[in-house]
Amino acid sequence: MKPAAIVIAIAAASLALPAAAQRKPEHVIHYRQAAMTMIGWNFGTLAAMVKGKTPWDAQEFALRADRIAGLAPQVLEGFAKGSDKGATTDAKPGIWTHFEDFKSKYDNLLTQSKALSEAAHGGDAAAMKEQFKKTAEACKDCHEKYKAD
Amino acid sequence: MKPAAIVIAIAAASLALPAAAQRKPEHVIHYRQAAMTMIGWNFGTLAAMVKGKTPWDAQEFALRADRIAGLAPQVLEGFAKGSDKGATTDAKPGIWTHFEDFKSKYDNLLTQSKALSEAAHGGDAAAMKEQFKKTAEACKDCHEKYKAD
Repeated sequence: MKPAAIVIAIAAASLALPAAAQRKPEHVIHYRQAAMTMIGWNFGTLAAMVKGKTPWDAQEFALRADRIAGLAPQVLEGFAKGSDKGATTDAKPGIWTHFEDFKSKYDNLLTQSKALSEAAHGGDAAAMKEQFKKTAEACKDCHEKYKAD
Repeated sequence: MKPAAIVIAIAAASLALPAAAQRKPEHVIHYRQAAMTMIGWNFGTLAAMVKGKTPWDAQEFALRADRIAGLAPQVLEGFAKGSDKGATTDAKPGIWTHFEDFKSKYDNLLTQSKALSEAAHGGDAAAMKEQFKKTAEACKDCHEKYKAD
């Protein structure tokens, strides 16, 4: 287990990183929204390519996939305990009352985004598009249950 | 030159990534604010340790330094041409009228944050603190000129 993974594991156990625990709820909310914005920004570029709205660019695909895979592990501390309220948020309270379920969906994002980054460097465009869909499904699966419309 | 560095070089030459050029100015502004929020979040944890407000934790220091070094190269496309207006922003117009100067300050952030990550894995707490200050100065140097109060 890499250091980052260990920290994530500790965070999952305590439901909050020590650093995040010292933050005001509104800062935690602001942070998680920023993380989602950055992931969405990169995901949008991939989606445009996969849907044929922009030209296919394998190098650009890999850059965006790598960034998503690097950003995904940074999301969890944005859901630190106590950040269910404090600022306008789309995060539903069920996240904290069903944290294990939420965490399992989050873990799937980590798995799928890591696989997306690996596929992006594999040279097989069809595999990249397939893994893009799996990653999008990981987002959707969590958003449907835990994100307000 | 790594792929990411090549993309950044291309972005610098055109003042905008192809992907970013397709974005609405408000989306670019939102993206750059998100990138700054994530960097600030991690920087805050380092600052608290350096200032002795929280206990020194070398592993935590390295995690945050690595994240900042990974996030910094993602900032530039948030200053794509045409994103000087379109939403509330602290970014001064001088960024785009003096882009070479802005870019030189940005490049210093890349240099200092990379050095911060390297220092964080070097085992010398004094060196980490010294490099933290240099990184903070890189932020300040650009904010003083190009960020509204």
